[in-house]
Amino acid sequence: MTYCLGVLLPAGLIMASDSRSNAGVDQVAKVRKLETYAVPGERMIAILSAGNLATTQWVVSSLKESEGDMSLRSAKTMFEVAKAVGSLVREVTDRDAKYVTPFGDPSANFIVGGQIAGEAPRLFQVYSAGNFIEASDRSCFLQVGETKYGKPILDRALSPDSTMDEAAKLTLLSFDATLRSNLSVGLPIDMLRYKADSFSADNFVTFEEHDAYFRGLRRAYADGLNALVNSLPAPSPAPDTMAS
Amino acid sequence: MTYCLGVLLPAGLIMASDSRSNAGVDQVAKVRKLETYAVPGERMIAILSAGNLATTQWVVSSLKESEGDMSLRSAKTMFEVAKAVGSLVREVTDRDAKYVTPFGDPSANFIVGGQIAGEAPRLFQVYSAGNFIEASDRSCFLQVGETKYGKPILDRALSPDSTMDEAAKLTLLSFDATLRSNLSVGLPIDMLRYKADSFSADNFVTFEEHDAYFRGLRRAYADGLNALVNSLPAPSPAPDTMAS
Repeated sequence: MTYCLGVLLPAGLIMASDSRSNAGVDQVAKVRKLETYAVPGERMIAILSAGNLATTQWVVSSLKESEGDMSLRSAKTMFEVAKAVGSLVREVTDRDAKYVTPFGDPSANFIVGGQIAGEAPRLFQVYSAGNFIEASDRSCFLQVGETKYGKPILDRALSPDSTMDEAAKLTLLSFDATLRSNLSVGLPIDMLRYKADSFSADNFVTFEEHDAYFRGLRRAYADGLNALVNSLPAPSPAPDTMAS
Repeated sequence: MTYCLGVLLPAGLIMASDSRSNAGVDQVAKVRKLETYAVPGERMIAILSAGNLATTQWVVSSLKESEGDMSLRSAKTMFEVAKAVGSLVREVTDRDAKYVTPFGDPSANFIVGGQIAGEAPRLFQVYSAGNFIEASDRSCFLQVGETKYGKPILDRALSPDSTMDEAAKLTLLSFDATLRSNLSVGLPIDMLRYKADSFSADNFVTFEEHDAYFRGLRRAYADGLNALVNSLPAPSPAPDTMAS
């Protein structure tokens, strides 16, 4: 399993993924699921991927090596990048599914975010069917993989008005919730914070198990949450039982 | 969909369910998914059910009306009650599945909790296959239905050392997280707080949409969570980007 999250804000994008790949519980590896491509002053494209690793790696490598409007280097808009990812997913599915399906699920999902000069930053989710949707200020985050455990904190606290710092914290807390509840999602977490108009993928940080900041964040959040719950009033007993 | 949660503590049990039943998005009803049966001084049995409503209602009605060791009134231990639920699930599956499956999933899951004099309170989860597991102080809560959204707060804050009041608050917050993220889980919430050795199901409260306590709890938790997140430090930028 995998957990990937993309957040679209006026100030930029947060793109993050875990690093666990497994084929059964006894074949576990760390892989990179967040790929970036940047040309200073012109474009920054980040791709998060979930699903069959052979499929996702084929799509990402093809994007990097291909030419023309459908390539990372030449696409004129982020919409074209999303179309290219969708086309490649269909191409690999048409070609590989009949060979792969007897051994496992060949499907893959992607979150594609970035900015090409002339546009604001944009964020897309490309389904395994090759079609895709775009985030907006009405739904400012997109998830793929093991999405449920990490969604409540985003639903409660993330909004299009959040700052990049707030979104970065909430992203890590969303991953923390997922890591605690699902063993198939694992550290390290890769996180790109893309500042609008910077056309740079340099603000890329990897949080390992022993990262002092991430450990402190997890502990402070757990302590704060317990203190918060303790501070809330308990429900009254049912009226009939008040006297007992 | 449904969300049901049972919590086992030394001091007693919390049993809670939502009330939404739906067959597609245009056929939605409120139903009771938490049934109780009590004999003062002798037994208190509570059953939470998820899945096909015809299946769950048949199982619960049969338990109430049947005689012998496998009935709610005569079972000598909670283990016997769990066995009875499992047997009835198999009976209805063997009889109905071939008729029901063309129209929908006939399966059902249950959480069975309670106390029969001579034993401490016990808590079981009965699968649609009719087999079952029991909670313990190592895993003190069991969930059925839409379980994922409401699990992180339990994993973080609920422990066998929690008080009944803490567990009641965490139960409602777990339901709140689920209600926010999944439209097929709906108010009101039914919650039984069973005090060990009371053999009473009287402390049963229903939280409706406009319940003042539940609204206050949701608001205070949301406000507190936002304040907590704001109080946490943001991650540093990547070292290479510190200067920019």
